[in-house]
Amino acid sequence: MIVDFAIFPIGEGESLSSFVADAFKIIEESGLPYEHHSMGTNLEGDWDEVMSVIKACRDRMLEQSNRVSIAIKIDDRQGAKDRIRRKVASAKAKMNEPISPLK
Amino acid sequence: MIVDFAIFPIGEGESLSSFVADAFKIIEESGLPYEHHSMGTNLEGDWDEVMSVIKACRDRMLEQSNRVSIAIKIDDRQGAKDRIRRKVASAKAKMNEPISPLK
Amino acid sequence: MIVDFAIFPIGEGESLSSFVADAFKIIEESGLPYEHHSMGTNLEGDWDEVMSVIKACRDRMLEQSNRVSIAIKIDDRQGAKDRIRRKVASAKAKMNEPISPLK
Amino acid sequence: MIVDFAIFPIGEGESLSSFVADAFKIIEESGLPYEHHSMGTNLEGDWDEVMSVIKACRDRMLEQSNRVSIAIKIDDRQGAKDRIRRKVASAKAKMNEPISPLK
Repeated sequence: MIVDFAIFPIGEGESLSSFVADAFKIIEESGLPYEHHSMGTNLEGDWDEVMSVIKACRDRMLEQSNRVSIAIKIDDRQGAKDRIRRKVASAKAKMNEPISPLK
Repeated sequence: MIVDFAIFPIGEGESLSSFVADAFKIIEESGLPYEHHSMGTNLEGDWDEVMSVIKACRDRMLEQSNRVSIAIKIDDRQGAKDRIRRKVASAKAKMNEPISPLK
Repeated sequence: MIVDFAIFPIGEGESLSSFVADAFKIIEESGLPYEHHSMGTNLEGDWDEVMSVIKACRDRMLEQSNRVSIAIKIDDRQGAKDRIRRKVASAKAKMNEPISPLK
Repeated sequence: MIVDFAIFPIGEGESLSSFVADAFKIIEESGLPYEHHSMGTNLEGDWDEVMSVIKACRDRMLEQSNRVSIAIKIDDRQGAKDRIRRKVASAKAKMNEPISPLK
């Protein structure tokens, strides 16, 4: 499955990049395929793999902040692999096709 | 402000990339800074600019599907510009600093 | 369409209920059907109606905070009405039916 | 922590209430405090308790559908209890106070 998540502390001021940096370290050390973007990070793996990375980011942030907000979006498609690299490419390829007919 | 959004039809089957391709066309023609990622697209602009692009994607999709799901995540920070390019870089730069001390 | 949204300031401390109270006032004065729950508020109306309420909440919050986070989830189904009252009831009614057969 | 989640299959048609009913059964049998609303369900518990309920809903849905979408929003505040009942009440109480002064 592929998961987009964003995590940040509430009540630790307006600038959050040092908290995000801590999360990046945990994500990048996990070994899972990842894609950082300006509103979160996408991770690919099975349920337990991905959720243990998110939980590690949350546990770390709760050491430094009393309140943490997390948003997670999951796209779980059986039998699909390597989607973190292929989803955008797949839609891009369709853009060269003629406009899809209206229903 | 910077906005992450994902839009897809419900009830049009499991393969959605041709619908995503239609949304990509609308996004890319809007002239707003954008960043496609494997779970959505980030857009940067003011409220009305960004929301009119999302509404155009939704109006197009409702021509082809009876039910549409949209997820939108907004980070609205006054005075901040060019964040679609700078947010990841800002956290990356912090990764080279010593581990932030625990509270 | 029916919309779930949550809005809060970043950098204004950990306790947010007075900010939420301001949003509740705007929502309740809008005249749209609404449902507060412990993680957000659901609103029902057409695109422009609903988005203008969310924008008013955001404009108000930006008077008091420099950075605002908003999460919006939309379920847009053509021809469906009064869903804020009927969606839970519809699933509840199905719970009395025999377990749906596996595919 | 308190968690809002919504889960539905992609590619199983437009009417989803029988799938939601299956999720409701799993949620209600979990013993955790819950609140159904028209765009999802809020659950309260610790990380492992809540995530195992969501995973059970997902495992059940993947028996019936090849592709599943899940949105999860977490508000994790240390030392706070019984929030599924108290968060809306807390903001409601603030509505009776004079308008908060602008910064």
